[in-house]
Amino acid sequence: MIFKTPTQYFLVSGASEGYTPLNAFDGALIQAGIGNTNIVKMSSIVPPHCKRISPIALPPGALVPAAYTSITSDVPGEIISAGVAVALPEDENQNGLIMEYSAKGERRKIEEIVRDMAMEGMKLRGWKIKDLKSIAIGYKIKKIGAVLAAVVLWG
Amino acid sequence: MIFKTPTQYFLVSGASEGYTPLNAFDGALIQAGIGNTNIVKMSSIVPPHCKRISPIALPPGALVPAAYTSITSDVPGEIISAGVAVALPEDENQNGLIMEYSAKGERRKIEEIVRDMAMEGMKLRGWKIKDLKSIAIGYKIKKIGAVLAAVVLWG
Amino acid sequence: MIFKTPTQYFLVSGASEGYTPLNAFDGALIQAGIGNTNIVKMSSIVPPHCKRISPIALPPGALVPAAYTSITSDVPGEIISAGVAVALPEDENQNGLIMEYSAKGERRKIEEIVRDMAMEGMKLRGWKIKDLKSIAIGYKIKKIGAVLAAVVLWG
Repeated sequence: MIFKTPTQYFLVSGASEGYTPLNAFDGALIQAGIGNTNIVKMSSIVPPHCKRISPIALPPGALVPAAYTSITSDVPGEIISAGVAVALPEDENQNGLIMEYSAKGERRKIEEIVRDMAMEGMKLRGWKIKDLKSIAIGYKIKKIGAVLAAVVLWG
Repeated sequence: MIFKTPTQYFLVSGASEGYTPLNAFDGALIQAGIGNTNIVKMSSIVPPHCKRISPIALPPGALVPAAYTSITSDVPGEIISAGVAVALPEDENQNGLIMEYSAKGERRKIEEIVRDMAMEGMKLRGWKIKDLKSIAIGYKIKKIGAVLAAVVLWG
Repeated sequence: MIFKTPTQYFLVSGASEGYTPLNAFDGALIQAGIGNTNIVKMSSIVPPHCKRISPIALPPGALVPAAYTSITSDVPGEIISAGVAVALPEDENQNGLIMEYSAKGERRKIEEIVRDMAMEGMKLRGWKIKDLKSIAIGYKIKKIGAVLAAVVLWG
C-alpha cells in the first residue's frame, strides 16, 4: 500500500459567508474545524474496523483525506445545504459507505436524500445496514456563502 | 517525498445505473472492481519502472491514487463513454503518460480520442512511444447512469 | 497521521496550447515544471515552519500534494489567467493560507484578486500577516489553451 489505511473517522459540517466563493468555502472549513488542514478529496469508504470518534483538533497543515461535499451561492436569500451519510454494515469485516449531497434547498430535505443514497449504495452491494449516521447543514445566503459537510478520516 | 511512489498499475472500467448520479458513479466504481476503496484523484503519470499488472482486489477502505474520468447522464437512451490511455516511452527511465476522456458518444470514438491525446502528450515531451495501452467503456442510459475508466496505481 | 506533513513549498505557473483542453492542461503543468509528476489536489494550507524553496525537479511519477487552479479556453484571442497567493502569519506557530483564482482576464487583475482573497482569509482567522507571496500567469488563446498556478508541497 502507498498510503496507510485510516483507523478513525468523524463527521463535521460548516457554513460561512465569504469575500469570494473560495473564501466562503474556506470559512465553512474553519467553522467545521478543519480549515487549517490540507483536505485531500477521496471517494467514499469507511474502512472495516475504523472507529467513529468525536471531532478532534487536527495538526495545522496536516494532509487529511476526507469525503466531502460543498456548494456555494451568490444569490441573496437563497438556501443551500450540504450533507453526508455513513452506512455501516452488519458484517464488521466489510467496509462502510459514505455518500455526499449538496444542493439548493432545506437542510432536512438534503439530509433525507443523502441518507437514502447511502442506503441505496448498501443495497447495491447486497449488504445489510447495522447503523446509518448523517450530518447536514443549511444556510441562507447574505451575499456570498458556502456550506460543507464532510467525513474526515484519521488515525 | 511525502508519499511513496507507486510501483504497479492496472486499467479498469465500469458502468452502472444508479438511484442518483453519485450512486451511479459508485456503481461504476464497483463494476470496475474499485468500489470499496478510497480513490484519490491525481494527474496523470505512470512512474518509470512501474509494472502493469492485472486488476487485483484492493484492501477495503485503502487510499488508492488513480487517474480517472467519469461522466453521468440522466437522459434515457443517451450513450456515454469513458476511456483512459497510457503511453509508455522508449526510454525506460522516463515516465509514462496517462490521458483520460469521457463524453457523450460511442465507446470506439472516445477510445480513439483518448489514445490520440496520449500520443500528443508524448509528442509534446519529445519522447518516442514504445507502447500505447487503453481501456474504454460505453453505456446506454436507462434512467440515471455513469461510466468510469481509470488507471489505478499501487505497489 | 496517515500522511507526513510537508516541510517545503514552492510556487509555479505555466501556460500552454494543446490538442485538447486536457492536453493544454498537461502542457501548462510541463511548463510549470511539474508535468511529469502525479499532482494530488488539496485545500490549501502551508504548514507551520514549512520553508519556501526555489522550484526543484521532482522525481518523475512522484505523488505530490499541491494547491492549484487552472482554466482552459477554446476561444481564440481570449485572455485567461491563473494565480495563487500565500499569506504567512506573524506567529510562526500558525499555518499559512493559500488561495487560488483563475478566470478570463488579465494576469495583473487576477493576481490582485487572489492576493486580496489570501488577506481576507487571514482576516477571517484574526491573524496578522507577516508576508504575502503570489504568482500569476496570463495567456492569450490561439486555439485551445490552459493556464495553471500552483503551490507545491514537498519535503
